Amino acid sequence: MAQKTDETKVLRDPIHGYIHVNDQVIWECINAREFQRLHRIHQLGGDFQVYHTAEHSRFSHSLGVYEITRRMIFEVQSLSQALNEEEKIEVLCAALLHDLGHGPFSHFFETITQIPHEQMTTSLILDPKTQVHQALVKVDSQLPKRVAGIINHTHPKAILSQIISSQLDADRMDFLLRDAYETGTSYGTFDLERVLRTLRVHEGKLCVKESGMHSIEDYIMARYHMYWQVYLHPDAKSYENLIRIFFVHYLKQEKVSIPIFEPLKQKRLSNEDFILMDEYRLMVGFQEALRCSDPLLRDLACRILDRHLFGWIEDPEWDQEQKIKDKLQDIGLDPAIYTIEEISQSKAYLPYQESDENTTIWILNSKSKLEPLSSCSEIVKALLKMPNTTKKRFYFAKEALQ
Amino acid sequence: MAQKTDETKVLRDPIHGYIHVNDQVIWECINAREFQRLHRIHQLGGDFQVYHTAEHSRFSHSLGVYEITRRMIFEVQSLSQALNEEEKIEVLCAALLHDLGHGPFSHFFETITQIPHEQMTTSLILDPKTQVHQALVKVDSQLPKRVAGIINHTHPKAILSQIISSQLDADRMDFLLRDAYETGTSYGTFDLERVLRTLRVHEGKLCVKESGMHSIEDYIMARYHMYWQVYLHPDAKSYENLIRIFFVHYLKQEKVSIPIFEPLKQKRLSNEDFILMDEYRLMVGFQEALRCSDPLLRDLACRILDRHLFGWIEDPEWDQEQKIKDKLQDIGLDPAIYTIEEISQSKAYLPYQESDENTTIWILNSKSKLEPLSSCSEIVKALLKMPNTTKKRFYFAKEALQ
Amino acid sequence: MAQKTDETKVLRDPIHGYIHVNDQVIWECINAREFQRLHRIHQLGGDFQVYHTAEHSRFSHSLGVYEITRRMIFEVQSLSQALNEEEKIEVLCAALLHDLGHGPFSHFFETITQIPHEQMTTSLILDPKTQVHQALVKVDSQLPKRVAGIINHTHPKAILSQIISSQLDADRMDFLLRDAYETGTSYGTFDLERVLRTLRVHEGKLCVKESGMHSIEDYIMARYHMYWQVYLHPDAKSYENLIRIFFVHYLKQEKVSIPIFEPLKQKRLSNEDFILMDEYRLMVGFQEALRCSDPLLRDLACRILDRHLFGWIEDPEWDQEQKIKDKLQDIGLDPAIYTIEEISQSKAYLPYQESDENTTIWILNSKSKLEPLSSCSEIVKALLKMPNTTKKRFYFAKEALQ
Amino acid sequence: MAQKTDETKVLRDPIHGYIHVNDQVIWECINAREFQRLHRIHQLGGDFQVYHTAEHSRFSHSLGVYEITRRMIFEVQSLSQALNEEEKIEVLCAALLHDLGHGPFSHFFETITQIPHEQMTTSLILDPKTQVHQALVKVDSQLPKRVAGIINHTHPKAILSQIISSQLDADRMDFLLRDAYETGTSYGTFDLERVLRTLRVHEGKLCVKESGMHSIEDYIMARYHMYWQVYLHPDAKSYENLIRIFFVHYLKQEKVSIPIFEPLKQKRLSNEDFILMDEYRLMVGFQEALRCSDPLLRDLACRILDRHLFGWIEDPEWDQEQKIKDKLQDIGLDPAIYTIEEISQSKAYLPYQESDENTTIWILNSKSKLEPLSSCSEIVKALLKMPNTTKKRFYFAKEALQ
Repeated sequence: MAQKTDETKVLRDPIHGYIHVNDQVIWECINAREFQRLHRIHQLGGDFQVYHTAEHSRFSHSLGVYEITRRMIFEVQSLSQALNEEEKIEVLCAALLHDLGHGPFSHFFETITQIPHEQMTTSLILDPKTQVHQALVKVDSQLPKRVAGIINHTHPKAILSQIISSQLDADRMDFLLRDAYETGTSYGTFDLERVLRTLRVHEGKLCVKESGMHSIEDYIMARYHMYWQVYLHPDAKSYENLIRIFFVHYLKQEKVSIPIFEPLKQKRLSNEDFILMDEYRLMVGFQEALRCSDPLLRDLACRILDRHLFGWIEDPEWDQEQKIKDKLQDIGLDPAIYTIEEISQSKAYLPYQESDENTTIWILNSKSKLEPLSSCSEIVKALLKMPNTTKKRFYFAKEALQ
Repeated sequence: MAQKTDETKVLRDPIHGYIHVNDQVIWECINAREFQRLHRIHQLGGDFQVYHTAEHSRFSHSLGVYEITRRMIFEVQSLSQALNEEEKIEVLCAALLHDLGHGPFSHFFETITQIPHEQMTTSLILDPKTQVHQALVKVDSQLPKRVAGIINHTHPKAILSQIISSQLDADRMDFLLRDAYETGTSYGTFDLERVLRTLRVHEGKLCVKESGMHSIEDYIMARYHMYWQVYLHPDAKSYENLIRIFFVHYLKQEKVSIPIFEPLKQKRLSNEDFILMDEYRLMVGFQEALRCSDPLLRDLACRILDRHLFGWIEDPEWDQEQKIKDKLQDIGLDPAIYTIEEISQSKAYLPYQESDENTTIWILNSKSKLEPLSSCSEIVKALLKMPNTTKKRFYFAKEALQ
Repeated sequence: MAQKTDETKVLRDPIHGYIHVNDQVIWECINAREFQRLHRIHQLGGDFQVYHTAEHSRFSHSLGVYEITRRMIFEVQSLSQALNEEEKIEVLCAALLHDLGHGPFSHFFETITQIPHEQMTTSLILDPKTQVHQALVKVDSQLPKRVAGIINHTHPKAILSQIISSQLDADRMDFLLRDAYETGTSYGTFDLERVLRTLRVHEGKLCVKESGMHSIEDYIMARYHMYWQVYLHPDAKSYENLIRIFFVHYLKQEKVSIPIFEPLKQKRLSNEDFILMDEYRLMVGFQEALRCSDPLLRDLACRILDRHLFGWIEDPEWDQEQKIKDKLQDIGLDPAIYTIEEISQSKAYLPYQESDENTTIWILNSKSKLEPLSSCSEIVKALLKMPNTTKKRFYFAKEALQ
Repeated sequence: MAQKTDETKVLRDPIHGYIHVNDQVIWECINAREFQRLHRIHQLGGDFQVYHTAEHSRFSHSLGVYEITRRMIFEVQSLSQALNEEEKIEVLCAALLHDLGHGPFSHFFETITQIPHEQMTTSLILDPKTQVHQALVKVDSQLPKRVAGIINHTHPKAILSQIISSQLDADRMDFLLRDAYETGTSYGTFDLERVLRTLRVHEGKLCVKESGMHSIEDYIMARYHMYWQVYLHPDAKSYENLIRIFFVHYLKQEKVSIPIFEPLKQKRLSNEDFILMDEYRLMVGFQEALRCSDPLLRDLACRILDRHLFGWIEDPEWDQEQKIKDKLQDIGLDPAIYTIEEISQSKAYLPYQESDENTTIWILNSKSKLEPLSSCSEIVKALLKMPNTTKKRFYFAKEALQ
């Protein structure tokens, strides 16, 4: 049986007012080394290079996902009734810990470890040496396994996974509101109170009453705008690309050794090495690289630390690209390294798609039947009919323009 | 030459921080009787019966439209350069005064006067007996005519009318933000700062730089949501319908006389009578009606004053309607009076349509060409392709349910 | 036993997110004629003449006081345990109805009726003819008496009165936040969430844990600033003074009769006449006065309707005053009517004073003892030691300056 | 002559809407290595250990101080007129760069370098090898010296220093608002718009018109509350104390070497070493310390990284302290290291004191005379009369409680 804290512990939070903690296991997970580490991973990767106040971390976001989950399972009556005490603890832990496996600049790091962050998360939760594992087993020896099951969608009670990872989940709801607040944009705003008030469980599925549909449309639009204005901002991508290029080259160099980065040359990072590896460590590695013997690595490290981002053109003409490449060649910067092409498909970044049951938001209509969002909402229907367009972005060292 | 005020006068405003007044003529128009009257006309008609804090008036909104116009013509460089000093004063006056001709519960009142409120506005501006007219002529004897010209779209400089009345105008921008603030919903929020920053004049047209397109999409969606969640709220309509029914019957009664309402029986309200006629007066008229000899008028007045709204059903079955009518008949309430049918076409309330040049928002693309919004924005394109659906709402006295 | 509503009814509110209604009696009181009337009484009297968006009514405020009370008695554990179900209903009703007896421009009206608004409130609650009374007796025939007892501080359980009327009550907490929001000033802001979290009951008294003391200091300062910047604003007072002068003269005129104002000439307004008398009615009365036979009343009515406020000087020299009076005499405006002197003592408007037990805010210190706020807070101690200073404000018709 | 940027560059900021950059030199300073480094110094030191969202850096704050300065010198007319173009550039640069010399966890670092951060700031500005110096000299070879002069209060035009460092300066105004926003508390809020509107220059001094005095009182109270609730929070101090203890011991160890920390053993850090030394580097140093040979350093590093903060008691009894020390001794933790006493004097943290002309806020009264704030404001007068009280905080390793 999970132990309660002496009194409700509260943490001030600009998005939710307070984060409320009532369970000892949650308190111990927050104070675990692996969770404290999240203070050293930016929530928005390289976005702080564009939106200078986007300096918030996955630590704050994780607390926020926990808080929304807590409100969902205690304030939404039909959900509260659908879960027993054990399941409530399980999903609260899963909500809190779901981002534990993020490496520095998440997507870059997944290309290095070749492990999706969700898998890394469950690996840490299941590892008896981690402090979070030790906190969980105090409640029940099977708790780590069940929490991991929620995260990797193998838990027998599917609704627990829906709460933290679906098209309308606590994760997305927190990050939209939080990222909007921290960047100072208004795009991510939607009416959380109304969504919580109209959330229901029906036939074992999370769904939303018809009267809440406008809030859901607003939420979908918030996602759309945040994608294009914040998450895919070309300058943020440019910064992350620099980091990726650095490592592509570093990992090929056998002679150059930067101690902080050495573990990355191994086949498989140990959990212990992974826990040490955070964005702070990466930046210090780049500082060390400023003094290494390889001029290319020195140059890239300097660009990263001092924010000399690549420029970019959208859908460039062939000869525009060529001219830039020629110029770079002239001034001694290898175009194979100092230019990058990225192709994006607008459809791939649609904020919402209904490809199957798991990607559908369900509306509970006035006749108590579940309908897919797209069959109720004219706006969403229209959105899903958007044609797929392809865009190319061409990045290049700005020296080409001088 | 327009006289400046001694120093900038400022009025605290929750939406804009401050309203800034630098011109004597603006200050005098604000203090004119016809403008002060706007404190007695709700901005959102019967909406305060649903959103209890929607108690703000057209006075505050008019100041807001003035302030956005002021920022547009002084902060948007290309607009500032396109206008001379006289035109700036003209459009500021037009912005401030554009809603002067609103009667109580605007749409109801237009059905009685048979005069659109814009026409009433210009009538007041052109009437030498009004205080606003007297303030305007102090600057220039032609000023009333030119201000009226902006409001009724006959001013030779078309862009002046676009500023206060087009698809992307100071009027809509203020009311979306203000109505969202005052109702406590988040739907109407969009990024005014970014819209102002990306606004341009090109080929004599107001337009928006491509980099501001996402803010415009957000603004269009804000309109969409405000329409459905606030402006067309069935309970607000229900309240306004009660007022309409009351007057349909009152105007037919020759024997019943409620002094406050007598001028409404005339063919044409004088400007003087119009100025007296505000929502305060209407409510006191209903109080008087409580004591009149006609039982139907007494009953309707009581429903209005005490908020006994009609109930409503969306797209009712034929026999649902019939059953309600029968019940009303049984209890002595004439169904011809105590039920109403409204038919709405979703297309008619689309927040944006491009039927012709005047209804188009123009985007200034990266090649300095103007394009209609719909050809740049996938979202808007999708929106415009929405099928037209028809909805019926059936209103009825709630006694039918007992 | 009080009946519950079918489901929680919610009303959107910008201050509290939602107002939550679970009890049928609350729902019926909200829909009662006497409560609906509050939409026609400004919360801040003449303040909308200075802060143009201060157009909110006692209706919204009353809902807010109800909601804070609801949160206090259900979220503050020690308070929830100190009250039984009946007492909870009683205090909720008292919170909702506490302002029912406000007349138009409250303080002006009390000088006419010679009845404090609290007494008027209880009179309406106890009157079997009112709709609120009828709603209350459905629950229990003694409920009106008990609700009235809370309002006039005669209820045997003193803490119920403390909740809605003491130095730290739901009434003040709502109006500070709401008035700040609606005027667009930031002065009234304090941390409601933290106050609610640190509120306790100890020895039958409402008190605040020591860890919440800073929030209380902030709340006291919020009151201080709102008094001086909003509630006592000279232009708002100037407007209310005009109304007062009008009635001083009207009540003396035996020959002039403005039908709407006739009941005010009676010794004692009936409850029925009181309910009709709202600010809407007053304004229409002034419109009628524009056409009455008395030139002084016509002039004053015109100033009120068109906002021709008196000017004012703080602590004027004797000859400054005299000069103004002479000038008014010269132009035919009787100085006895067209000038006013007001004397205020800074101490009288101190936002907090500890004259006796009822005016004290109690702090629960770490040794579980109650201490008066002033003995814990250096800030408050300093505030209470302020010397008493006297200020004179001299108001006069602005024609004196021309 | 300072070069303008092609167009106004804007950076989104949640506090100010946008940061506006019009001068090439400002743009280059922002992009200089030494300024980019500020992203790696927390604005609030260890406060993010208490307020988990206080993760913002001195980078954002510095942009904010720049923006408020920009508004002061362009929007306050009397200030705009008092400065020539060169002085405007000088003070903008000083505002932007004023925090350049902050080391990791500022106060800790000053105890190591023995150099106040302001002195470090000017040292960087005057160093020809820094990128900020190189940006400044492009405008004028004397610019670095003049900017440094503003920062160290030796510039001949005293008002320039007042703008960025006095009792009512752009620095404090930004940090109060920003820290309140980022921590999610409401304490730091005050009315910046009103302060800017009432700011004046008179007799060469920055001052505030009497009509703005309430905003200043509010600002003083905001400072008071932020000090006690945020800046002096015992858990934040506890974290910074841990870091200090670590270094006290590290610097005594001759045999233990943690490469990252080696430069700190030198008499005087070079500017180059200083620039490298940021909080990221410190944390990685602690990670390295986890593997060093000294058990005490290993233990302290672990406490820092995993947030095992010391507990604390306010004004403890002698035997309370003694009992804790005995317990620590028993379990092998040296009380000389694992306990700390701090004494604070309430007066020392008064948010405002008028010890001399430089520490005085001046009010411009209605007779155009300057008066010290304390002689106009009853609140401030009371505050300054507060008695000086002494408080002791006793910190200790929490193992003592088990």
